[in-house]
Amino acid sequence: MEKIDVGKKVLSANEAYALKNRALLAQRGKPCFNMISSPGSGKTTILVRTITDLAGSLRIGVIEGDIQTDIDAQRIQAAQAPAVQINTEGACHLSAAQVHRGLEELPLDRLDLVLIENVGNLVCPSAFELGEHGKIVVLSAPEGDDKPVKYPAIFAKSRVLLVNKIDLLGGAQVDFDLERVQADARRLNRDIAIFPVSAKTGAGMQAWYDWLTDQARAMR
Amino acid sequence: MEKIDVGKKVLSANEAYALKNRALLAQRGKPCFNMISSPGSGKTTILVRTITDLAGSLRIGVIEGDIQTDIDAQRIQAAQAPAVQINTEGACHLSAAQVHRGLEELPLDRLDLVLIENVGNLVCPSAFELGEHGKIVVLSAPEGDDKPVKYPAIFAKSRVLLVNKIDLLGGAQVDFDLERVQADARRLNRDIAIFPVSAKTGAGMQAWYDWLTDQARAMR
Repeated sequence: MEKIDVGKKVLSANEAYALKNRALLAQRGKPCFNMISSPGSGKTTILVRTITDLAGSLRIGVIEGDIQTDIDAQRIQAAQAPAVQINTEGACHLSAAQVHRGLEELPLDRLDLVLIENVGNLVCPSAFELGEHGKIVVLSAPEGDDKPVKYPAIFAKSRVLLVNKIDLLGGAQVDFDLERVQADARRLNRDIAIFPVSAKTGAGMQAWYDWLTDQARAMR
Repeated sequence: MEKIDVGKKVLSANEAYALKNRALLAQRGKPCFNMISSPGSGKTTILVRTITDLAGSLRIGVIEGDIQTDIDAQRIQAAQAPAVQINTEGACHLSAAQVHRGLEELPLDRLDLVLIENVGNLVCPSAFELGEHGKIVVLSAPEGDDKPVKYPAIFAKSRVLLVNKIDLLGGAQVDFDLERVQADARRLNRDIAIFPVSAKTGAGMQAWYDWLTDQARAMR
Protein backbone atom coordinates (compact mmCIF):
# COMPACT_ATOMS: atom_id res chain seq x y z
CA MET A 1 0.00 0.00 0.00
CA GLU A 2 2.79 2.33 0.97
CA LYS A 3 4.52 1.49 -2.30
CA ILE A 4 1.47 2.65 -4.28
CA ASP A 5 1.25 5.98 -2.41
CA VAL A 6 4.91 6.63 -3.04
CA GLY A 7 4.52 5.92 -6.74
CA LYS A 8 1.85 8.58 -6.92
CA LYS A 9 4.01 11.19 -5.20
CA VAL A 10 6.98 10.58 -7.47
CA LEU A 11 4.76 10.67 -10.54
CA SER A 12 3.17 13.95 -9.64
CA ALA A 13 6.51 15.68 -8.97
CA ASN A 14 7.62 14.31 -12.33
CA GLU A 15 4.42 15.44 -14.02
CA ALA A 16 4.93 19.03 -12.86
CA TYR A 17 8.22 19.09 -14.78
CA ALA A 18 6.61 17.28 -17.71
CA LEU A 19 4.05 20.10 -17.96
CA LYS A 20 6.87 22.68 -17.84
CA ASN A 21 8.64 20.87 -20.68
CA ARG A 22 5.47 20.66 -22.75
CA ALA A 23 4.89 24.41 -22.29
CA LEU A 24 8.48 25.24 -23.23
CA LEU A 25 8.33 23.07 -26.37
CA ALA A 26 4.96 24.53 -27.41
CA GLN A 27 6.20 28.08 -26.91
CA ARG A 28 9.29 27.44 -29.03
CA GLY A 29 7.37 25.35 -31.59
CA LYS A 30 9.66 22.32 -31.34
CA PRO A 31 8.40 18.74 -31.50
CA CYS A 32 10.06 16.31 -29.13
CA PHE A 33 9.97 12.50 -29.07
CA ASN A 34 11.08 10.04 -26.41
CA MET A 35 12.84 6.90 -27.73
CA ILE A 36 12.45 3.84 -25.52
CA SER A 37 13.78 0.31 -25.93
CA SER A 38 15.80 -2.50 -24.38
CA PRO A 39 19.56 -2.00 -24.22
CA GLY A 40 21.20 -2.72 -27.55
CA SER A 41 18.20 -2.39 -29.87
CA GLY A 42 20.09 0.26 -31.83
CA LYS A 43 18.63 3.60 -30.66
CA THR A 44 21.94 5.45 -30.97
CA THR A 45 22.70 3.92 -34.38
CA ILE A 46 19.23 4.97 -35.59
CA LEU A 47 19.85 8.49 -34.28
CA VAL A 48 23.29 8.79 -35.90
CA ARG A 49 22.01 7.62 -39.30
CA THR A 50 18.90 9.81 -39.09
CA ILE A 51 20.95 12.91 -38.21
CA THR A 52 23.45 12.22 -40.98
CA ASP A 53 20.90 11.42 -43.69
CA LEU A 54 18.72 14.43 -42.81
CA ALA A 55 21.62 16.90 -42.49
CA GLY A 56 20.64 20.09 -44.31
CA SER A 57 16.91 19.38 -44.20
CA LEU A 58 16.06 18.70 -40.52
CA ARG A 59 18.11 20.01 -37.61
CA ILE A 60 17.90 17.49 -34.76
CA GLY A 61 19.09 17.95 -31.17
CA VAL A 62 19.46 14.99 -28.82
CA ILE A 63 19.10 14.46 -25.08
CA GLU A 64 21.03 11.28 -24.25
CA GLY A 65 20.03 9.36 -21.15
CA ASP A 66 22.43 6.77 -19.80
CA ILE A 67 23.11 5.29 -16.40
CA GLN A 68 26.82 6.01 -16.79
CA THR A 69 29.29 7.08 -19.53
CA ASP A 70 28.95 9.62 -22.34
CA ILE A 71 29.65 7.10 -25.12
CA ASP A 72 26.30 7.78 -26.77
CA ALA A 73 26.50 11.59 -26.67
CA GLN A 74 29.97 11.37 -28.22
CA ARG A 75 28.54 9.29 -31.08
CA ILE A 76 25.80 11.91 -31.66
CA GLN A 77 28.26 14.81 -31.51
CA ALA A 78 30.51 13.01 -34.00
CA ALA A 79 27.48 13.13 -36.36
CA GLN A 80 27.58 16.95 -35.97
CA ALA A 81 24.39 17.32 -33.92
CA PRO A 82 24.01 19.07 -30.56
CA ALA A 83 23.72 16.48 -27.79
CA VAL A 84 23.33 16.80 -24.03
CA GLN A 85 24.34 13.78 -21.97
CA ILE A 86 22.40 13.03 -18.79
CA ASN A 87 23.75 10.35 -16.47
CA THR A 88 21.06 8.92 -14.20
CA GLU A 89 23.69 7.36 -11.86
CA GLY A 90 21.85 4.09 -11.52
CA ALA A 91 18.26 5.20 -12.12
CA CYS A 92 16.39 3.13 -14.68
CA HIS A 93 14.68 5.96 -16.59
CA LEU A 94 15.00 9.67 -17.38
CA SER A 95 12.93 12.07 -15.27
CA ALA A 96 11.14 15.13 -16.62
CA ALA A 97 13.38 17.32 -14.42
CA GLN A 98 16.48 15.88 -16.12
CA VAL A 99 14.94 16.47 -19.53
CA HIS A 100 14.14 20.05 -18.48
CA ARG A 101 17.84 20.69 -17.83
CA GLY A 102 18.62 19.07 -21.20
CA LEU A 103 16.14 21.33 -23.02
CA GLU A 104 17.67 24.38 -21.38
CA GLU A 105 21.15 23.37 -22.55
CA LEU A 106 20.20 22.59 -26.16
CA PRO A 107 20.28 25.49 -28.69
CA LEU A 108 16.52 25.12 -29.36
CA ASP A 109 16.36 28.14 -31.69
CA ARG A 110 18.70 26.42 -34.11
CA LEU A 111 16.80 23.10 -34.05
CA ASP A 112 13.72 21.72 -35.82
CA LEU A 113 13.21 18.73 -33.56
CA VAL A 114 14.40 17.21 -30.26
CA LEU A 115 14.86 13.47 -29.80
CA ILE A 116 15.35 12.00 -26.34
CA GLU A 117 17.17 8.69 -26.05
CA ASN A 118 15.97 7.19 -22.79
CA VAL A 119 17.92 4.70 -20.64
CA GLY A 120 17.89 1.22 -22.20
CA ASN A 121 14.90 -0.36 -20.47
CA LEU A 122 11.64 -1.54 -21.99
CA VAL A 123 9.69 -1.27 -18.73
CA CYS A 124 10.29 1.70 -16.42
CA PRO A 125 10.64 4.61 -18.88
CA SER A 126 7.13 3.93 -20.18
CA ALA A 127 5.70 5.09 -16.81
CA PHE A 128 7.35 8.54 -16.76
CA GLU A 129 6.01 11.35 -18.92
CA LEU A 130 8.76 13.75 -19.96
CA GLY A 131 6.56 16.36 -21.66
CA GLU A 132 7.30 14.84 -25.06
CA HIS A 133 4.89 14.82 -28.01
CA GLY A 134 5.08 11.08 -28.27
CA LYS A 135 7.01 7.96 -27.47
CA ILE A 136 8.90 5.93 -30.07
CA VAL A 137 9.52 2.31 -29.15
CA VAL A 138 12.39 0.49 -30.84
CA LEU A 139 12.37 -3.31 -31.04
CA SER A 140 15.25 -5.09 -32.75
CA ALA A 141 14.55 -8.35 -34.56
CA PRO A 142 16.98 -10.49 -32.49
CA GLU A 143 14.97 -9.65 -29.33
CA GLY A 144 12.15 -11.83 -30.61
CA ASP A 145 8.62 -11.36 -31.86
CA ASP A 146 6.92 -11.97 -28.48
CA LYS A 147 7.86 -8.59 -27.01
CA PRO A 148 4.60 -6.64 -27.67
CA VAL A 149 2.70 -9.39 -25.84
CA LYS A 150 5.17 -9.64 -22.96
CA TYR A 151 5.86 -5.90 -22.48
CA PRO A 152 2.56 -4.36 -23.63
CA ALA A 153 2.69 -0.99 -21.83
CA ILE A 154 5.24 0.69 -24.05
CA PHE A 155 3.68 -0.63 -27.26
CA ALA A 156 0.26 0.60 -26.14
CA LYS A 157 1.59 4.11 -25.43
CA SER A 158 3.89 4.76 -28.40
CA ARG A 159 3.14 6.77 -31.53
CA VAL A 160 5.77 4.87 -33.52
CA LEU A 161 7.29 1.39 -33.51
CA LEU A 162 10.67 1.10 -35.22
CA VAL A 163 11.48 -2.57 -35.88
CA ASN A 164 15.26 -2.40 -36.24
CA LYS A 165 17.94 -4.82 -37.52
CA ILE A 166 15.72 -6.20 -40.30
CA ASP A 167 18.97 -6.93 -42.16
CA LEU A 168 19.23 -9.97 -39.87
CA LEU A 169 15.95 -11.41 -41.17
CA GLY A 170 15.57 -13.72 -44.12
CA GLY A 171 18.45 -15.96 -43.13
CA ALA A 172 18.05 -19.00 -40.92
CA GLN A 173 19.66 -17.44 -37.87
CA VAL A 174 17.06 -15.04 -36.46
CA ASP A 175 13.49 -16.30 -35.94
CA PHE A 176 11.24 -13.27 -36.06
CA ASP A 177 7.72 -13.01 -37.46
CA LEU A 178 7.31 -9.37 -38.48
CA GLU A 179 3.62 -9.86 -39.26
CA ARG A 180 3.00 -11.21 -35.76
CA VAL A 181 4.70 -8.16 -34.24
CA GLN A 182 2.66 -5.78 -36.39
CA ALA A 183 -0.60 -7.53 -35.53
CA ASP A 184 0.17 -7.71 -31.77
CA ALA A 185 1.28 -4.05 -31.65
CA ARG A 186 -1.86 -2.90 -33.52
CA ARG A 187 -4.06 -4.94 -31.17
CA LEU A 188 -2.59 -2.88 -28.31
CA ASN A 189 -2.55 0.38 -30.23
CA ARG A 190 -4.62 0.73 -33.40
CA ASP A 191 -2.92 3.97 -34.52
CA ILE A 192 0.73 3.07 -34.02
CA ALA A 193 2.94 3.80 -37.05
CA ILE A 194 5.24 0.85 -37.73
CA PHE A 195 8.50 1.22 -39.66
CA PRO A 196 10.65 -1.88 -40.25
CA VAL A 197 14.19 -0.53 -40.69
CA SER A 198 17.85 -1.35 -40.66
CA ALA A 199 19.87 1.54 -39.30
CA LYS A 200 22.92 -0.36 -40.49
CA THR A 201 22.02 -0.78 -44.16
CA GLY A 202 19.54 2.11 -44.40
CA ALA A 203 16.67 -0.17 -45.49
CA GLY A 204 13.23 1.28 -44.68
CA MET A 205 14.63 4.47 -43.16
CA GLN A 206 13.01 6.87 -45.68
CA ALA A 207 9.48 6.23 -44.33
CA TRP A 208 10.72 7.09 -40.83
CA TYR A 209 12.42 10.25 -42.11
CA ASP A 210 9.17 11.31 -43.83
CA TRP A 211 7.25 10.80 -40.58
CA LEU A 212 9.76 12.88 -38.57
CA THR A 213 9.80 15.65 -41.18
CA ASP A 214 5.99 15.80 -41.14
CA GLN A 215 6.06 16.20 -37.35
CA ALA A 216 8.45 19.15 -37.56
CA ARG A 217 6.37 20.75 -40.33
CA ALA A 218 3.15 20.38 -38.30
CA MET A 219 4.65 22.33 -35.37
CA ARG A 220 5.88 25.31 -37.42
CA MET B 1 15.32 13.11 -0.48
CA GLU B 2 11.97 11.49 0.08
CA LYS B 3 12.71 9.17 -2.84
CA ILE B 4 15.87 7.91 -1.11
CA ASP B 5 14.04 7.15 2.16
CA VAL B 6 11.40 5.23 0.32
CA GLY B 7 14.00 3.21 -1.55
CA LYS B 8 15.46 2.17 1.77
CA LYS B 9 12.11 1.07 3.16
CA VAL B 10 11.26 -1.05 0.11
CA LEU B 11 14.72 -2.63 0.09
CA SER B 12 14.60 -3.61 3.72
CA ALA B 13 11.13 -5.18 3.43
CA ASN B 14 12.51 -7.03 0.41
CA GLU B 15 15.62 -8.06 2.29
CA ALA B 16 13.59 -9.63 5.07
CA TYR B 17 12.06 -11.98 2.50
CA ALA B 18 15.46 -12.50 0.86
CA LEU B 19 16.81 -13.74 4.21
CA LYS B 20 13.82 -16.07 4.54
CA ASN B 21 14.50 -17.48 1.09
CA ARG B 22 18.19 -17.93 1.83
CA ALA B 23 17.35 -19.83 5.05
CA LEU B 24 14.81 -22.04 3.26
CA LEU B 25 17.28 -22.90 0.47
CA ALA B 26 20.09 -23.62 2.95
CA GLN B 27 17.83 -25.85 5.05
CA ARG B 28 16.76 -27.85 1.96
CA GLY B 29 20.28 -27.83 0.45
CA LYS B 30 19.18 -26.39 -2.89
CA PRO B 31 21.26 -23.88 -4.84
CA CYS B 32 19.33 -21.08 -6.52
CA PHE B 33 20.46 -18.61 -9.19
CA ASN B 34 18.81 -15.45 -10.47
CA MET B 35 19.04 -14.91 -14.25
CA ILE B 36 18.98 -11.26 -15.32
CA SER B 37 19.15 -9.70 -18.79
CA SER B 38 17.51 -7.36 -21.26
CA PRO B 39 14.33 -8.62 -22.90
CA GLY B 40 15.08 -11.01 -25.72
CA SER B 41 18.63 -12.05 -24.80
CA GLY B 42 17.49 -15.68 -24.75
CA LYS B 43 17.05 -16.53 -21.06
CA THR B 44 14.10 -18.87 -21.69
CA THR B 45 15.81 -20.56 -24.62
CA ILE B 46 18.91 -21.13 -22.46
CA LEU B 47 16.70 -22.61 -19.72
CA VAL B 48 14.82 -24.92 -22.09
CA ARG B 49 18.02 -26.26 -23.66
CA THR B 50 19.74 -26.65 -20.26
CA ILE B 51 16.78 -28.55 -18.79
CA THR B 52 16.54 -30.81 -21.83
CA ASP B 53 20.27 -31.53 -22.12
CA LEU B 54 20.64 -32.20 -18.36
CA ALA B 55 17.49 -34.34 -18.07
CA GLY B 56 18.36 -37.41 -15.99
CA SER B 57 21.43 -35.81 -14.39
CA LEU B 58 20.26 -32.50 -12.88
CA ARG B 59 16.68 -31.80 -11.85
CA ILE B 60 15.97 -28.10 -12.36
CA GLY B 61 12.93 -26.14 -11.19
CA VAL B 62 12.16 -22.66 -12.55
CA ILE B 63 10.53 -19.54 -11.17
CA GLU B 64 9.46 -17.46 -14.18
CA GLY B 65 9.06 -13.72 -13.69
CA ASP B 66 7.16 -11.78 -16.34
CA ILE B 67 5.17 -8.59 -16.36
CA GLN B 68 2.29 -10.37 -18.05
CA THR B 69 1.55 -13.70 -19.77
CA ASP B 70 2.66 -17.24 -18.95
CA ILE B 71 4.36 -17.85 -22.31
CA ASP B 72 7.71 -18.55 -20.67
CA ALA B 73 6.42 -20.94 -17.99
CA GLN B 74 4.61 -22.88 -20.71
CA ARG B 75 7.90 -23.23 -22.62
CA ILE B 76 9.63 -24.53 -19.46
CA GLN B 77 6.81 -26.96 -18.67
CA ALA B 78 6.92 -28.26 -22.24
CA ALA B 79 10.56 -29.19 -21.47
CA GLN B 80 9.21 -31.34 -18.62
CA ALA B 81 10.46 -29.20 -15.73
CA PRO B 82 8.39 -27.78 -12.85
CA ALA B 83 7.83 -24.05 -13.41
CA VAL B 84 5.96 -21.45 -11.38
CA GLN B 85 4.88 -18.33 -13.26
CA ILE B 86 4.85 -15.03 -11.39
CA ASN B 87 3.28 -12.03 -13.09
CA THR B 88 4.54 -8.73 -11.69
CA GLU B 89 1.62 -6.80 -13.27
CA GLY B 90 3.78 -3.94 -14.49
CA ALA B 91 6.62 -4.08 -11.95
CA CYS B 92 10.08 -4.09 -13.48
CA HIS B 93 11.69 -6.77 -11.29
CA LEU B 94 10.83 -9.79 -9.13
CA SER B 95 10.61 -9.22 -5.37
CA ALA B 96 11.90 -11.63 -2.74
CA ALA B 97 8.32 -12.06 -1.49
CA GLN B 98 7.22 -13.23 -4.93
CA VAL B 99 10.15 -15.64 -5.09
CA HIS B 100 9.18 -16.92 -1.63
CA ARG B 101 5.77 -17.89 -2.96
CA GLY B 102 7.46 -19.52 -5.94
CA LEU B 103 9.78 -21.57 -3.70
CA GLU B 104 6.78 -22.75 -1.67
CA GLU B 105 5.02 -23.92 -4.82
CA LEU B 106 7.98 -25.77 -6.36
CA PRO B 107 8.52 -29.45 -5.38
CA LEU B 108 11.92 -28.66 -3.83
CA ASP B 109 12.49 -32.18 -2.53
CA ARG B 110 12.47 -33.50 -6.08
CA LEU B 111 14.87 -30.83 -7.41
CA ASP B 112 18.65 -30.36 -7.44
CA LEU B 113 18.64 -26.70 -8.38
CA VAL B 114 16.31 -23.70 -8.75
CA LEU B 115 16.74 -21.12 -11.51
CA ILE B 116 14.86 -17.83 -11.38
CA GLU B 117 14.20 -16.04 -14.66
CA ASN B 118 13.77 -12.40 -13.71
CA VAL B 119 11.76 -9.82 -15.68
CA GLY B 120 13.61 -8.73 -18.83
CA ASN B 121 15.43 -5.65 -17.57
CA LEU B 122 19.17 -5.07 -17.27
CA VAL B 123 18.81 -2.35 -14.63
CA CYS B 124 16.23 -2.75 -11.85
CA PRO B 125 16.51 -6.46 -10.98
CA SER B 126 20.17 -5.97 -10.07
CA ALA B 127 19.11 -3.88 -7.03
CA PHE B 128 16.82 -6.49 -5.46
CA GLU B 129 18.27 -9.45 -3.58
CA LEU B 130 16.02 -12.50 -3.81
CA GLY B 131 17.93 -14.76 -1.42
CA GLU B 132 19.66 -16.44 -4.35
CA HIS B 133 23.19 -17.89 -4.26
CA GLY B 134 24.26 -15.77 -7.17
CA LYS B 135 23.17 -13.75 -10.16
CA ILE B 136 23.68 -14.87 -13.74
CA VAL B 137 23.71 -12.09 -16.31
CA VAL B 138 22.90 -12.95 -19.92
CA LEU B 139 24.10 -10.68 -22.72
CA SER B 140 23.30 -11.60 -26.32
CA ALA B 141 25.77 -10.63 -29.02
CA PRO B 142 23.32 -8.48 -31.06
CA GLU B 143 22.90 -6.18 -28.02
CA GLY B 144 26.45 -4.93 -28.57
CA ASP B 145 29.77 -5.13 -26.79
CA ASP B 146 29.42 -1.83 -24.90
CA LYS B 147 26.92 -3.18 -22.35
CA PRO B 148 29.28 -3.97 -19.42
CA VAL B 149 30.54 -0.37 -19.58
CA LYS B 150 27.07 1.18 -19.93
CA TYR B 151 25.22 -1.05 -17.41
CA PRO B 152 27.99 -1.93 -14.95
CA ALA B 153 25.95 -2.80 -11.83
CA ILE B 154 24.69 -6.19 -12.97
CA PHE B 155 28.07 -7.23 -14.42
CA ALA B 156 29.79 -6.23 -11.16
CA LYS B 157 27.35 -8.31 -9.09
CA SER B 158 27.02 -11.51 -11.13
CA ARG B 159 28.78 -14.82 -10.57
CA VAL B 160 28.34 -15.80 -14.23
CA LEU B 161 28.12 -14.01 -17.57
CA LEU B 162 26.51 -16.02 -20.35
CA VAL B 163 27.27 -14.39 -23.71
CA ASN B 164 24.46 -15.83 -25.85
CA LYS B 165 23.74 -15.96 -29.61
CA ILE B 166 27.40 -16.45 -30.52
CA ASP B 167 26.09 -18.27 -33.62
CA LEU B 168 25.47 -14.76 -35.01
CA LEU B 169 29.17 -13.86 -34.78
CA GLY B 170 31.74 -14.43 -37.46
CA GLY B 171 29.56 -13.10 -40.26
CA ALA B 172 29.52 -9.48 -41.32
CA GLN B 173 26.14 -8.73 -39.79
CA VAL B 174 26.72 -8.48 -36.04
CA ASP B 175 29.59 -6.31 -34.77
CA PHE B 176 30.60 -7.68 -31.38
CA ASP B 177 34.04 -7.87 -29.83
CA LEU B 178 33.90 -10.80 -27.39
CA GLU B 179 37.36 -10.01 -26.03
CA ARG B 180 36.28 -6.46 -25.20
CA VAL B 181 33.24 -7.78 -23.30
CA GLN B 182 35.38 -10.27 -21.37
CA ALA B 183 37.95 -7.60 -20.46
CA ASP B 184 35.31 -5.02 -19.44
CA ALA B 185 33.34 -7.56 -17.38
CA ARG B 186 36.51 -8.73 -15.59
CA ARG B 187 37.51 -5.14 -14.86
CA LEU B 188 34.20 -4.80 -12.99
CA ASN B 189 34.31 -8.26 -11.46
CA ARG B 190 37.59 -10.17 -11.39
CA ASP B 191 35.98 -13.51 -10.48
CA ILE B 192 33.08 -13.61 -12.94
CA ALA B 193 32.82 -16.88 -14.89
CA ILE B 194 32.22 -16.15 -18.58
CA PHE B 195 30.63 -18.69 -20.92
CA PRO B 196 30.15 -17.75 -24.59
CA VAL B 197 27.23 -19.92 -25.76
CA SER B 198 24.57 -20.42 -28.37
CA ALA B 199 21.43 -21.83 -26.85
CA LYS B 200 20.23 -22.32 -30.41
CA THR B 201 23.09 -24.47 -31.73
CA GLY B 202 24.36 -25.77 -28.38
CA ALA B 203 27.84 -24.31 -28.88
CA GLY B 204 29.66 -23.68 -25.61
CA MET B 205 26.83 -25.00 -23.43
CA GLN B 206 28.83 -27.86 -21.86
CA ALA B 207 31.03 -25.52 -19.80
CA TRP B 208 27.88 -23.87 -18.43
CA TYR B 209 26.36 -27.28 -17.61
CA ASP B 210 29.56 -28.26 -15.78
CA TRP B 211 29.41 -25.07 -13.72
CA LEU B 212 25.75 -25.64 -12.79
CA THR B 213 26.39 -29.28 -11.90
CA ASP B 214 29.30 -28.27 -9.66
CA GLN B 215 27.04 -25.82 -7.82
CA ALA B 216 24.45 -28.52 -7.10
CA ARG B 217 27.17 -30.93 -5.96
CA ALA B 218 28.68 -28.34 -3.60
CA MET B 219 25.33 -27.89 -1.77
CA ARG B 220 24.71 -31.60 -1.19
